[in-house]
Amino acid sequence: MTSIRPTDVLGELYAKWAVEMTRDPEMSVELLRMVFDDWHNATAEPPDVTYRETEVGGVPGIEVLPEGCDVEQVLVFMHGGGFALGSPSSHRKLAGHLARECGTRAFVADFRLAPEHPFPTGLQDGVAVVDGLLGKGHRIEDITPVGDSAGGNLAIAIVLSLREEGRDLPTQVITMSPWLNMENTGRTLESNDATDFLITREGLQANIDRYLGGSTAATNPLANPLHADLTGFPRLYIDAGSAESLFDDAVQLHALAEKHGVDVTFTVGDGMQHVYPFMAGRDPRADVEIRRIADWYRAGR
Amino acid sequence: MTSIRPTDVLGELYAKWAVEMTRDPEMSVELLRMVFDDWHNATAEPPDVTYRETEVGGVPGIEVLPEGCDVEQVLVFMHGGGFALGSPSSHRKLAGHLARECGTRAFVADFRLAPEHPFPTGLQDGVAVVDGLLGKGHRIEDITPVGDSAGGNLAIAIVLSLREEGRDLPTQVITMSPWLNMENTGRTLESNDATDFLITREGLQANIDRYLGGSTAATNPLANPLHADLTGFPRLYIDAGSAESLFDDAVQLHALAEKHGVDVTFTVGDGMQHVYPFMAGRDPRADVEIRRIADWYRAGR
Repeated sequence: MTSIRPTDVLGELYAKWAVEMTRDPEMSVELLRMVFDDWHNATAEPPDVTYRETEVGGVPGIEVLPEGCDVEQVLVFMHGGGFALGSPSSHRKLAGHLARECGTRAFVADFRLAPEHPFPTGLQDGVAVVDGLLGKGHRIEDITPVGDSAGGNLAIAIVLSLREEGRDLPTQVITMSPWLNMENTGRTLESNDATDFLITREGLQANIDRYLGGSTAATNPLANPLHADLTGFPRLYIDAGSAESLFDDAVQLHALAEKHGVDVTFTVGDGMQHVYPFMAGRDPRADVEIRRIADWYRAGR
Repeated sequence: MTSIRPTDVLGELYAKWAVEMTRDPEMSVELLRMVFDDWHNATAEPPDVTYRETEVGGVPGIEVLPEGCDVEQVLVFMHGGGFALGSPSSHRKLAGHLARECGTRAFVADFRLAPEHPFPTGLQDGVAVVDGLLGKGHRIEDITPVGDSAGGNLAIAIVLSLREEGRDLPTQVITMSPWLNMENTGRTLESNDATDFLITREGLQANIDRYLGGSTAATNPLANPLHADLTGFPRLYIDAGSAESLFDDAVQLHALAEKHGVDVTFTVGDGMQHVYPFMAGRDPRADVEIRRIADWYRAGR
């Protein structure tokens, strides 16, 4: 536990969750899912966006339609929550803000979660969404995997999966506070422990155990992209908050991408919490970051 | 606890909550609020509706804007959750379905909750929303209080408050599974206990204690409209599910309204749970009921 007080709405939300999770360390996955669905409360409703429950490639999810967007361009949004928690509902508004600024629509995939569905089910669902969009006539360069936290891992792994199959790749990938290190050895787990209101090494390990489920190694590049060869990887955006325990995952991904010659952009939110763009519409620092991602996205088109 | 199994998505949701609340009877109000925010999961996203966070009369909330609606007509939506739980987020989609069918917009009020803000704060916030709309030039006959459960109580109490002040009244009021009996003596609390997956007498009493907070009697008509004189009350819509423990509250309200000469319509959802319109977009019985409410609303214009 930390003695530092939260200074933004996301930190306040995480601190509130931490109180409950500390009081009841045996919280069921079902209850944890209800708690994490509260994530949306960090985000304001984006104006002029409609939503539709649908499915793409057999995967259910929420289609996010900003008024006047280019419906050909789709952000395939893989939500965070440690592969076990989170939902299209928790991320609907975040996806709405991002799609609105990018001028695209988004599909927030309700991919299957661990532990009921361990690796690689969620990843396969992500690939199925891309296949579904291609099947509807979208061009691969109009399909952009996006993800936060564990969803950032999945966004990268979708591309690695397509590459394994020798297929055409998306041209851009967006990750926010990606969680990648399934060996649970990130260097900021301890050094940022006092400033991160959500993440603990124990909490991460519980989700690692749920996701890997004994079925694959913590160094499998499709589960831990820090072990991937990123040569030929699409243009890549990474952001993270300097206050978060998972900051090192972003630093390592950035270093690996540079080493492998990827066109990579890394933005650090000074003093920010895990997935700080969640504060879109409530904190100008999140709004600035959403616009920065959108500018990067448009520049790559 | 009941041995009957839920037969619809709302019953499944309530049964899931009940498991958690039984496992941890000391759940904090904060955690209960996270659980009850999950209510929205019973409802599908209504298509062609946008949302905007705003305030009306100094009360924050979510404005719900169906495409092509008559923006002069506003449903003032008072959400359920025992005066202590629930939020504009838990009820956003339900309000969206209803406003869409009615051809109006809606404002889901984020009125202040008990126990931090006991009676009559939530009610005063509801009246403030009506005042705010009048101040923006809306006519009183274009403003319709709507509420489910405790929100149904508030929707009625808003009108009673206006009447106490000798003011013009809305011409229509809509209540879904209204919770009214603050004496906690409803006749279906026991008889429907086996078929209601959410409500218990103990749970109700906890919220009564939070709401009344020792500051008013359980028979104050503004807290318990079953003790009100409804003479001259607007056209009133009531629905409820026959399986719910609070069914008797609706029955008693209907009887009282008839006795006092109110133009009242009462619809019973056979075998349905508490606030069954929550299943809009997921269960045809909820969709039928939403359309029935809308038909009633339009007929009264």
